[in-house]
Amino acid sequence: MKKKIYTWIKPKNKEASSLDEIFSPVSQDLRQVEKLLQVWYCATSPVIKKMASQVISSQGKLIRPGLLLLATGHLGYRGNEGVRTAAAVEAVHTASLIHDDIIDDSPTRRGQKTAARIFGTGFSLLLGDYLFIKSIGNSLAITRKNIPQILARVTEQMIEGEIDELAHSYNFNLTERQYFQIIRKKTAGLFQASCEIACTLDDAPKEEESALRLYGLNLGLTFQVVDDLLDLAGNPVETGKDRFSDLKEGRVTLPLILALKNSPPEIEPRLKTLLEKIKSQPEENNLITLLRLIEKSGALNLTFKKAKRLAEGARRAANKLIPSIYRQSLLDLLDFVLYRKK
Amino acid sequence: MKKKIYTWIKPKNKEASSLDEIFSPVSQDLRQVEKLLQVWYCATSPVIKKMASQVISSQGKLIRPGLLLLATGHLGYRGNEGVRTAAAVEAVHTASLIHDDIIDDSPTRRGQKTAARIFGTGFSLLLGDYLFIKSIGNSLAITRKNIPQILARVTEQMIEGEIDELAHSYNFNLTERQYFQIIRKKTAGLFQASCEIACTLDDAPKEEESALRLYGLNLGLTFQVVDDLLDLAGNPVETGKDRFSDLKEGRVTLPLILALKNSPPEIEPRLKTLLEKIKSQPEENNLITLLRLIEKSGALNLTFKKAKRLAEGARRAANKLIPSIYRQSLLDLLDFVLYRKK
Repeated sequence: MKKKIYTWIKPKNKEASSLDEIFSPVSQDLRQVEKLLQVWYCATSPVIKKMASQVISSQGKLIRPGLLLLATGHLGYRGNEGVRTAAAVEAVHTASLIHDDIIDDSPTRRGQKTAARIFGTGFSLLLGDYLFIKSIGNSLAITRKNIPQILARVTEQMIEGEIDELAHSYNFNLTERQYFQIIRKKTAGLFQASCEIACTLDDAPKEEESALRLYGLNLGLTFQVVDDLLDLAGNPVETGKDRFSDLKEGRVTLPLILALKNSPPEIEPRLKTLLEKIKSQPEENNLITLLRLIEKSGALNLTFKKAKRLAEGARRAANKLIPSIYRQSLLDLLDFVLYRKK
Repeated sequence: MKKKIYTWIKPKNKEASSLDEIFSPVSQDLRQVEKLLQVWYCATSPVIKKMASQVISSQGKLIRPGLLLLATGHLGYRGNEGVRTAAAVEAVHTASLIHDDIIDDSPTRRGQKTAARIFGTGFSLLLGDYLFIKSIGNSLAITRKNIPQILARVTEQMIEGEIDELAHSYNFNLTERQYFQIIRKKTAGLFQASCEIACTLDDAPKEEESALRLYGLNLGLTFQVVDDLLDLAGNPVETGKDRFSDLKEGRVTLPLILALKNSPPEIEPRLKTLLEKIKSQPEENNLITLLRLIEKSGALNLTFKKAKRLAEGARRAANKLIPSIYRQSLLDLLDFVLYRKK
């Protein structure tokens, strides 16, 4: 079954480049980001040190800092604040994941136990707080005056998005428009801000800035739509996350919204009954039945098409940029995000 | 029993002034702080708005912003950034309380249900995040360059202190020295920083600054020691908090440390057995028995004496300040904090 679902999620003509290939023009800086994060995370407190080493060992894909560095590279930025800002963006992201895993009570993330499961709610809550403050605090040393403001604003927006999402738990009437408002705040904002920060660092020309910001926004939206698709149709061995976590937490995502909208009359009532059932009994067999109904409605294909369209929006924006090896990486990053399996 | 315990916690010659009296020289500014907090807390999101109004309705004593404003008043600061910085300090404090209540699973705070109990873990965790970021973010508009740094540093330190405290849960070998290291970070830092921020705003003379900082530090330590005493010996109707929350959460505080240190040989083993019992059975009768043993050891009196000595340290520092009506309030604030029942 997993195989069947995966058929539509492969690029047609070629394999997408790996992240290593995509980020190769900034690989040295990206290693510096990792080193700086190790310094930030390693506080004087031995407890924080221990937790931090766990966080570092389950380091993610570094897409946001990579994006920021590709953008500064493209703009020809020659200053030395790219690494620091990239690390701050990643720290904000990590802090929010740690808190998300508490809220969702998720067992795994990036193929490992979550901080919440390893250290308990108290420690992981405080660790998230620590990383949030560290990232903003460290960004204060950046002399370009707007960067801390951008970072604080986008973090605030991200939290607002998460609160809105939580408020719509089990709201099966959530519209596509509301869904996109939420993911714009909770996910795409930080992608866009990564581009905005790069432009602020370099005093980029207006046209380059608006193209980069539009690219970042659409990349971020694509990322989240694909994430929501992977939660249903992905292979947990590849994603490193528990499957169906959205449905289990009552998060109404695009595939479900489209399934509810597009189901033929004979399927719709079954879908609704099943959703109500899952609310109280989120067992695997109910979830798999639901997935089959969603698939049958064509919503998985449709969701992927929407992701593709968002990626096209990002591609158009990137194509407006002055050609550079960095721009090529930005274009390749789109395919990676769209066709990724984890 | 409550009455008996209270006998030693009253001032000898006079009643301490009320907070309204103490803060009367800055009452107008303090109202502005409340108004500004309402603006900050009321986001565009209706969910945040709803939660914020709950937080505002259970507003605390505003001791930290009051302290900051007394210090700016004393220094003769004429700028208009006192209110904003005072609000930022209070928002950091509120955010940390909201998260503390999740960690401790506390039912009540300030005589009302905690945010965690009203809105659940997810919402209150995100609300705390939101207030943390809001406070640092809003402080960025302050033109005196060091203020956001001070705020970020002290917040980081506060979280570190909380992590250290959590790491020492049920560590009945915690020393007095370790206890003071923890409360210095988790509580006294923000009091001290309130004074430091006032001095930074006004470019205060070195002597005034070091006196104010020492005052703030000792006031903060006094505050926490009395808080720990109230958790044992306070009247929940007055404190607005559940009693014995420290013992229930395994937090080893000064009264217990002193009891373990000073108990006569016949009491010590009973104390240790009881503590082990409470770890698995934190029932009221066990807790009251423990309280009686702590009282019998003289540790409650001794703890109060230590608080008094810290307050004396703060008093000596305040007496070094140039006389002013604000200085008088700072002196009165010491008595309030020392003799408070809530």
